[in-house]
Amino acid sequence: MRAQEFHLDERFEVLLRSSLRGDQISVSAADLRTHAIDQGPVTDYHEPLAVVWAEKVADVQAVVRAAAAHNVPLVTRGAGTGVSGGAHATAGSVVLNLTRMNTILEINAEDEIARVEPGVINGDLNDAAAKHGLMFAPDPASFKISTIGGNIATNAGGLRCAKYGVTRDAVLALDVVMADGSLIHTGHRTFKGVAGYDLTSLFVGSEGTLGIVVGATVRLRYLPTIVRTLAVFFSDVQTAAAGVLAIGAARVQPCILELLDGASLRELDFRNGSKLSLRGSALLLIQFDGLAAEQEESLAAAALEKQGGLVSREDPAEAQRLVELRRNNRGLDVDAENRVGEDVAVPRSQLVRYISALEEMAVRHGVDLQVIAHAGDGNLHPTFSVPGMDGMSLKALNDALDESIAKALELGGTITGEHGIGQYKLRWLPLEQAEQVLSIQRHIKALFDPQGILNPGKAITSATP
Amino acid sequence: MRAQEFHLDERFEVLLRSSLRGDQISVSAADLRTHAIDQGPVTDYHEPLAVVWAEKVADVQAVVRAAAAHNVPLVTRGAGTGVSGGAHATAGSVVLNLTRMNTILEINAEDEIARVEPGVINGDLNDAAAKHGLMFAPDPASFKISTIGGNIATNAGGLRCAKYGVTRDAVLALDVVMADGSLIHTGHRTFKGVAGYDLTSLFVGSEGTLGIVVGATVRLRYLPTIVRTLAVFFSDVQTAAAGVLAIGAARVQPCILELLDGASLRELDFRNGSKLSLRGSALLLIQFDGLAAEQEESLAAAALEKQGGLVSREDPAEAQRLVELRRNNRGLDVDAENRVGEDVAVPRSQLVRYISALEEMAVRHGVDLQVIAHAGDGNLHPTFSVPGMDGMSLKALNDALDESIAKALELGGTITGEHGIGQYKLRWLPLEQAEQVLSIQRHIKALFDPQGILNPGKAITSATP
Repeated sequence: MRAQEFHLDERFEVLLRSSLRGDQISVSAADLRTHAIDQGPVTDYHEPLAVVWAEKVADVQAVVRAAAAHNVPLVTRGAGTGVSGGAHATAGSVVLNLTRMNTILEINAEDEIARVEPGVINGDLNDAAAKHGLMFAPDPASFKISTIGGNIATNAGGLRCAKYGVTRDAVLALDVVMADGSLIHTGHRTFKGVAGYDLTSLFVGSEGTLGIVVGATVRLRYLPTIVRTLAVFFSDVQTAAAGVLAIGAARVQPCILELLDGASLRELDFRNGSKLSLRGSALLLIQFDGLAAEQEESLAAAALEKQGGLVSREDPAEAQRLVELRRNNRGLDVDAENRVGEDVAVPRSQLVRYISALEEMAVRHGVDLQVIAHAGDGNLHPTFSVPGMDGMSLKALNDALDESIAKALELGGTITGEHGIGQYKLRWLPLEQAEQVLSIQRHIKALFDPQGILNPGKAITSATP
Repeated sequence: MRAQEFHLDERFEVLLRSSLRGDQISVSAADLRTHAIDQGPVTDYHEPLAVVWAEKVADVQAVVRAAAAHNVPLVTRGAGTGVSGGAHATAGSVVLNLTRMNTILEINAEDEIARVEPGVINGDLNDAAAKHGLMFAPDPASFKISTIGGNIATNAGGLRCAKYGVTRDAVLALDVVMADGSLIHTGHRTFKGVAGYDLTSLFVGSEGTLGIVVGATVRLRYLPTIVRTLAVFFSDVQTAAAGVLAIGAARVQPCILELLDGASLRELDFRNGSKLSLRGSALLLIQFDGLAAEQEESLAAAALEKQGGLVSREDPAEAQRLVELRRNNRGLDVDAENRVGEDVAVPRSQLVRYISALEEMAVRHGVDLQVIAHAGDGNLHPTFSVPGMDGMSLKALNDALDESIAKALELGGTITGEHGIGQYKLRWLPLEQAEQVLSIQRHIKALFDPQGILNPGKAITSATP
């Protein structure tokens, strides 16, 4: 079958050019290529018909109105650092790029909030907040380049979630351009507010399928002045995973609690010339912050030594380097068909059992496995890979992936802890959610976007035929 | 105009009795009377046509199916401790009481979660969790008698919110009976999960208008072993309110930060024989918990002394008594037409200005005012009252109420921080939310409950004529 040919609707383009400057619209091959995909695995490559850069709310409204008038699907994106394909261009789509809307509109230190445009970089907001002794807590690995709008679209997590919550917990209010081009405001500037249904939480994590977030009011947290880091090495990954429960049983709450298996340590060593893998076969990297950090560190260290952990209190520079290594463990690699980083979460009591199951299935399918986990909240990022791109290798990889998902669900987990469904994980969504729940979501989508022009084919499944 | 007469539909009753035992259904005058209202102000008194006690999920499904078959409006309630009239019976309604569904299904200390039926009392869950060194953080003043289901329906807050969040932040997953009697499951047992739209947050705070919560998985937090309490008296309430910002500027996070004005102190003294009002004209009652509690207490005390506060470190028993007095400050009084406790929230930077405005408007309208606030999150409970029930007194009271709401909105606040819209606050909702936002909520309601049988006339406004 020949692929259908798509062309930019001339009437749409005319309408667009009546509202935007020429340098806000591109159909150049280079721009179309760089806007075709995010960092998720690609299974159905399409380049957009055009890329449009909005610079203000009215631009977004103009683009949406033009798209609505001519039924043009819009894929809205920020930095494109998502890893589930939520910002992949789809057939016949136009990509709406919000990175030029990057103004921090307000930081109010007394109210402990910030108001931002969607294209503000997470790291930039954190730098600005730090001057007031505050921070924006969500810290996806991509925080140095990812945008707040993208963080909101995916309800991004990160390393600090177990203590500080995910993006949804930090979002107080939103300005949203709806599918008809109208602008609404949801939520409140106050920490608490219960007027009506929680539309704000509904938009967070909806991957641009219900509306386009053009402004956000977020809660800031106190930037800790004291931080202590522990690196605890174990002889095997199961014992390290059991250590996560030991820390919980000591009733101390780390701000960071990462687990790395032997294969991950070896890869870090290979990439960075470190010698982590000589120190053990698994690592718990633990950070405490706040005035009680030292005391909490001691309690955790005692609990982990009892588990057989080799505890090293890291000097601040080395500790920071370890956390940086962890944050950048993906390096510049983008997931590919033969290398897929997963994002399941399981109840913490199931961590040991789940990691053992992963190791068993990797061996059985003959695929490589690395396990890194935000272990504090049971969120695992196992990466399965095969060297080849041949059919047999890819089948083994996908069989292992499917099995790892099924196992996570069997243990009471979820198919995505923080990356989102996007496009890549749609095939697993019906395994987690009943048809009626999927159907409710389709009805909500239809309510918000009756024409289906907002990032179609993402986040939720279309009706089963 | 004579009030319309309502009668229990016989076919509905027959259907109901085919599924439930006789002692699960009552039409006795006493039961109808005790189920007519919650603790919110009553402006339109109706007794239900019947009261039904569900004992299991299938009972709720049977009741909803019978109601759907014969278009009978259902008002679902737990303990009826809400203060916005969300559980007031409406004309021709049947009340569905869930207090018999009060089993704690599971407490998993390793996963740090509990699964409960909706009728479980908040205090009972906390007692059970405490045996594991855990707590359910939301702590509305009514926690000793209010149910988790009711906490979820109203997205209840409490004293510990500023540090631990509100009910929505503690709910991971829900079992919900939908308007057609079907049962769905939303959310996840893990701390994190981003599969699809956040239906769980949509149900939380929806006051039984979108579905009936028949089970909940909630996150538990570590029960602090160290608690320190400060009582800081001030010469006036404005300085006390400024103290809230001083604590924030010291970047310490209390678990409780309550403000009481002079009138509130005098009422507490009158009720309890205490002598608080001799110690100052306003009080900040502050609690820190966790391993750093003592250090945080010192930092806060220093900051508040600089503000002119008279700091007294309370011995634990006296401190606990003060917190109890605060929790029970409403006494057994139910709000009435001539005594209305408000629930606005303002950005914290506006606390001083807002309290001054409240005092000015109380004087001008000739009404009594007491101000108590969960000051840590800017959530104020000013209580306006007049001695008489005559038309002029009530008009003065309602004028003051309306003005206090308008002022909160003008300062960037919300009309309800934690009590919910219920029935009583519907008149103010359009002041906070634009018609399009109200309309979206009506469409969501229609999607979930096309017949409009689930707690009609609550939480959201009906279409403007």
